Amino acid sequence: MDKLIEKIIQTQNPSVVGLDTDFAYLPDEMRAGVTDFEGAAKAIVAFNKAIVDEIADVVPAVKVQIAYYEMYGVHGMQAFLETCAYAKSKGMVVIADAKRNDIGSTASCYAKAFLGKTPVEGQLYAAFDADMLTVNGYLGTDGIAPFVKELTEDSKGIFALVKTSNPSSGELQDLTLSDGRKVYECMGDMVAKWGEGNMGKYGYTAVGAVVGATHKEQAEILRKRLPTVFFLIPGYGAQGGTADDLSVCFDERGLGGVVNSSRGILCAYRKDAYKGMSFAEAARAASIDMKNDILRAMQARGIQRIGG
Amino acid sequence: MDKLIEKIIQTQNPSVVGLDTDFAYLPDEMRAGVTDFEGAAKAIVAFNKAIVDEIADVVPAVKVQIAYYEMYGVHGMQAFLETCAYAKSKGMVVIADAKRNDIGSTASCYAKAFLGKTPVEGQLYAAFDADMLTVNGYLGTDGIAPFVKELTEDSKGIFALVKTSNPSSGELQDLTLSDGRKVYECMGDMVAKWGEGNMGKYGYTAVGAVVGATHKEQAEILRKRLPTVFFLIPGYGAQGGTADDLSVCFDERGLGGVVNSSRGILCAYRKDAYKGMSFAEAARAASIDMKNDILRAMQARGIQRIGG
Repeated sequence: MDKLIEKIIQTQNPSVVGLDTDFAYLPDEMRAGVTDFEGAAKAIVAFNKAIVDEIADVVPAVKVQIAYYEMYGVHGMQAFLETCAYAKSKGMVVIADAKRNDIGSTASCYAKAFLGKTPVEGQLYAAFDADMLTVNGYLGTDGIAPFVKELTEDSKGIFALVKTSNPSSGELQDLTLSDGRKVYECMGDMVAKWGEGNMGKYGYTAVGAVVGATHKEQAEILRKRLPTVFFLIPGYGAQGGTADDLSVCFDERGLGGVVNSSRGILCAYRKDAYKGMSFAEAARAASIDMKNDILRAMQARGIQRIGG
Repeated sequence: MDKLIEKIIQTQNPSVVGLDTDFAYLPDEMRAGVTDFEGAAKAIVAFNKAIVDEIADVVPAVKVQIAYYEMYGVHGMQAFLETCAYAKSKGMVVIADAKRNDIGSTASCYAKAFLGKTPVEGQLYAAFDADMLTVNGYLGTDGIAPFVKELTEDSKGIFALVKTSNPSSGELQDLTLSDGRKVYECMGDMVAKWGEGNMGKYGYTAVGAVVGATHKEQAEILRKRLPTVFFLIPGYGAQGGTADDLSVCFDERGLGGVVNSSRGILCAYRKDAYKGMSFAEAARAASIDMKNDILRAMQARGIQRIGG
């Protein structure tokens, strides 16, 4: 988690660009003549690389949503791999958004796939080699422990779902338990516990939480309840979350969270506000606008500079 | 779900073989000389094909655990694809065990990847083309709806996690809600609701539940509570669940559930009981032993024949 926080301070930007790159998001000229998964996957990589080239100096991290790659089959997975590797090569922190979850023995395979290395006859090889991974804690501690075991480097971290940004998230997550806690608070408490033993130098552990920007009340409760847990905050922009809503996720140093936007950045070139720009230039401009929007909301809460 | 149930009745076998094929499970001679992911993936496919060839006439379905393929990178995903396609070509129902979950727009990508087809410039292509998929419902209805939308064919179905087989599953799933239900019961109720509108001819919907063989008490409660929900039952064998424990998951016709075993079948050739057999012959023999063990437990409960 420290590497992500350092990049946030360095860029003064607590946001992450979601490379949830649906082939349909690409400009006409990049889609023309493509007739199969292989062509779609290659075009997606070219699109992602152009965006990374434009944003790498102003945005600390990318969140690569694997579902958008799996739907193009094995070629899509190759595109996922190349996208992650390219963003890393440009100095960005790479968050694989895969929400993986399973029993311990299987979770250890996922942990190897995304954060660690897989043995083949005594040799170790990295499969997808991300810095960070989203996970789902419905199975409890022994399904998360294998991921925690991989958090041996400063760059490695996980984010477990706590309060998700989607409209139905409350159906289970907002229910009240017999001890008075909400289910999302209970999950948050588990996340805090999983992070013990992986405390970083900024007071946050390597086990973060996914907390949606679309649920301000719950985000505020979680920020107070989980002072050592860093938040990955989806739901800004296209999903309806505002900078003012999500500003409750930051501590008095402006740390404690990183905000994701995907479609709002990838498809910025289709908006009037960015007319005349290439898709990559528009993505850069929209990223800077998003950063300034969040910093403005922080300043309204008295935070002048991220990191103090 | 109907296709799975018909295969179960036809084979008189309510079990599924889990192709959770770790490269380390392969016999020495298949691992010899392999030094990279490509070689490991090819050897895993050869191993899986030999097992499918031996079991296709006695076992109705395979459950292919994708984590064991993701850890070998893009080559592993190719092996996953080839394994699913081969089992399908031999008439087996293919359950992709991936426990996918996300917000609606992203879940629709996963639904396309595993159950449906993905558009590329107006043409539709199947990515991994499984019959059934495991999912995780922590995000609520709008994260599951895209999968339900794909359940248009008799062969298609999903299984949502309800009560998982791992030791820590109770940390969240067994907690009591303020309305008196356990979290797993609440999730079970949601699963039953998601299945409405996809009722099959045997009285079970196309939205099933994962219910571990290792938690007999909860399985018994869920069987009574969810009469229209078909169970995928992990935890038999290596994880400690017995046929007598899990027999509570079946209705009076012997329907209502399908039991998974992975390591117990794949690594049977290493056991004394199957000495002298090839790994594939041992897998077949262990599958038949497992079937007979479950049928024996069913008979002890008065069920003479699956399907009545």
